[in-house]
Amino acid sequence: MARIVMKFGGTSVADLDRIRNVAARVAREVVRGHEVAVVVSAMSGTTNQLVGWCQSLAPLHDAREYDTVVATGEQVVTGLLAIALQERGVDARSWQGWQIPIETDDAHGKARIMGIDGADLIRRMGLGQVAVVSGFQGIGPDRRITTLGRGGSDTSAVALAAALKADRCDIYTDVDGVYTTDPRIVSKARKLDKIAYEEMLELASVGAKVLQTRSVELAMNERVRVRVLSSFVEMDPNDPLDGDKAGTLVVDEDEIVEKQMVAGIAYSRDEAKITLRRIPDRPGIAAAIFGALADHNVNVDMIVQNISADGMTDLTFTVGKADLPRAQATLAEAQPQIGHAEAIADPSVAKISVVGTGMRSHAGVANTMFRALADKAINIQVISTSEIKVSVLIAADYTELAVRALHTAYCLDAA
Amino acid sequence: MARIVMKFGGTSVADLDRIRNVAARVAREVVRGHEVAVVVSAMSGTTNQLVGWCQSLAPLHDAREYDTVVATGEQVVTGLLAIALQERGVDARSWQGWQIPIETDDAHGKARIMGIDGADLIRRMGLGQVAVVSGFQGIGPDRRITTLGRGGSDTSAVALAAALKADRCDIYTDVDGVYTTDPRIVSKARKLDKIAYEEMLELASVGAKVLQTRSVELAMNERVRVRVLSSFVEMDPNDPLDGDKAGTLVVDEDEIVEKQMVAGIAYSRDEAKITLRRIPDRPGIAAAIFGALADHNVNVDMIVQNISADGMTDLTFTVGKADLPRAQATLAEAQPQIGHAEAIADPSVAKISVVGTGMRSHAGVANTMFRALADKAINIQVISTSEIKVSVLIAADYTELAVRALHTAYCLDAA
Repeated sequence: MARIVMKFGGTSVADLDRIRNVAARVAREVVRGHEVAVVVSAMSGTTNQLVGWCQSLAPLHDAREYDTVVATGEQVVTGLLAIALQERGVDARSWQGWQIPIETDDAHGKARIMGIDGADLIRRMGLGQVAVVSGFQGIGPDRRITTLGRGGSDTSAVALAAALKADRCDIYTDVDGVYTTDPRIVSKARKLDKIAYEEMLELASVGAKVLQTRSVELAMNERVRVRVLSSFVEMDPNDPLDGDKAGTLVVDEDEIVEKQMVAGIAYSRDEAKITLRRIPDRPGIAAAIFGALADHNVNVDMIVQNISADGMTDLTFTVGKADLPRAQATLAEAQPQIGHAEAIADPSVAKISVVGTGMRSHAGVANTMFRALADKAINIQVISTSEIKVSVLIAADYTELAVRALHTAYCLDAA
Repeated sequence: MARIVMKFGGTSVADLDRIRNVAARVAREVVRGHEVAVVVSAMSGTTNQLVGWCQSLAPLHDAREYDTVVATGEQVVTGLLAIALQERGVDARSWQGWQIPIETDDAHGKARIMGIDGADLIRRMGLGQVAVVSGFQGIGPDRRITTLGRGGSDTSAVALAAALKADRCDIYTDVDGVYTTDPRIVSKARKLDKIAYEEMLELASVGAKVLQTRSVELAMNERVRVRVLSSFVEMDPNDPLDGDKAGTLVVDEDEIVEKQMVAGIAYSRDEAKITLRRIPDRPGIAAAIFGALADHNVNVDMIVQNISADGMTDLTFTVGKADLPRAQATLAEAQPQIGHAEAIADPSVAKISVVGTGMRSHAGVANTMFRALADKAINIQVISTSEIKVSVLIAADYTELAVRALHTAYCLDAA
């Protein structure tokens, strides 16, 4: 007997048939004797429609009213899933953020969870009742409905699992686990049985879209065992352990016995490169540049500065592709303070990252990467590293070639 | 300066353009210096969709989950209207039933309002903030969302007006007031400027669909001045009193100076007639019949019993047309106890009612009705009367003829 939280995203509850399927998966865990809480998203499409209505009425609208409107999407699904579960003979009830309550801060539209009172849910789960909880929402200090921002349902599920002291948090999505890289690019990509929190976090932050970054961070801090698995894979009625084997478990590094040097390879084409030519090489100049960008809400990722020649230097960095026009306008405005001769923008770049806790104990991981790319004549534009990650910026055209070469170089190809 | 509650039904908030129109009407009252609370329904169509989903998942579903699902329709509109008002520069915020709170009993799906704490709303309205309140819903003793049942938004508005001690409750709908009869049948029907609570209540209960019966009852008990008017009539920007003149005011009888003998004529084709032939004329037989029907949830309206001959009698009554099959099955089952020779059902009947407080002081109102119908050779099948109402059952084919004849007979035709 275990206590588990199951989370289903928008595509998994997109219509009544899929909600019935979700009820079947939940019922199976109940039959096995588990205590279950379910966290649901809105039906896919609903949230976009509700957001669109708010934006049509006023491009800049009150975030508190936006939250009131948008939170209804999850509320509908909790009620429908509770009905579907009851129809299968499973005791269940719906819970909105304000009913539990899931307390958040007052940052409407992108609130953070401050605390969850799980006592009543734990008591009822102990009596066999399934708790069906609205993801993505909570209640603020102003006693009004808050939402956590996009992807927030993963975070709701992990936070609830922590509050309920759950043995596991199962995130059902439209992929069946975490892969060594994108299977659409590398046919030999392998599904990982286990991955460490730190690796998942780095992969999520560099482009792997399986889990939302904040939810992984929270899982790591609260030591919640998270499992990623698909709600679209058929259940095997003859295999009592079917559900337990599936997907990828995100756990503490110590739980992973056979460590690979590299766990996975991620790529992102969502960044753009900016090079400032011939800026004066003097103290304070970097602060002038990145201060101005921060003031205009532009996040900067990779940064590299060339060595100085005759008192002048070049500086290259990346920003989100969507922020590029705003970044360019900011730099043009700040040119008198920065003093650069030229700002060159290049949106045709890709960031390729290799991630693995094995890097801590293995030397030469970065070198393997540089050699593999050189063998394919792929030029590296920018390099950045962290303790368990090496990222390089290359021309976007080479994305697939680079990912495939690295997948082979790190011996990740499936047999 | 007055404090008013404005209520808008589903067709008045059916899309974003109509929500903007509602915001314009509310803004006008604010500009006039009024304190305003707005009660809204769900966008027309939404509630039916949500109800349909619940029924698809389980024909007999948990009413508490049904309420959770269905109440979202109003919640969406409160947020959208608040945004639309703010966009016009009007301070506004949305309120759900649980936030005010609007306390109800625990009859989920058809709850009754037990009390509304209006203190915070009154304080904020005094500061110029418009309260946008979800109609049709509240919070039960179990701290779960309740709904009031179909048409409950009118009741929400009247109850809120009573709690806020509002000077008036304006019900915006798709007709521009209460008419002496249905204008689709009688082209000379006149809009009434004022009508007494009792008259409105009788008209609502005999088929006039302008206001929900329970809301009129509540308005009468709490002495809330209710105005019925259309949200589709163009506002006249040059007439500062435009809104104040419009519609029909439902008020205390004493406020109506020029009383007509009859205020209006209503008709209903929603009933069916059942005649039981040759039942034994002995004590307890009526109880056997109507007890059996009540046990099967069949509401009986008009009843008439013929005089007895040779110990046998005939009994005629009406039931809702939708209940007719259930009523027939019940009577067939109870035949051994009742002992009737025959049960004859006739769904082709119409109930025509004349309503007016003037009947209390004028004799001969019923006689005018019988004479007018006789003049058109319309046969009266059943008669029932109350203090301020006379209803007759006739063949359905004669409905329009009867209504027009009575409208003329009671001098209601417009000049």
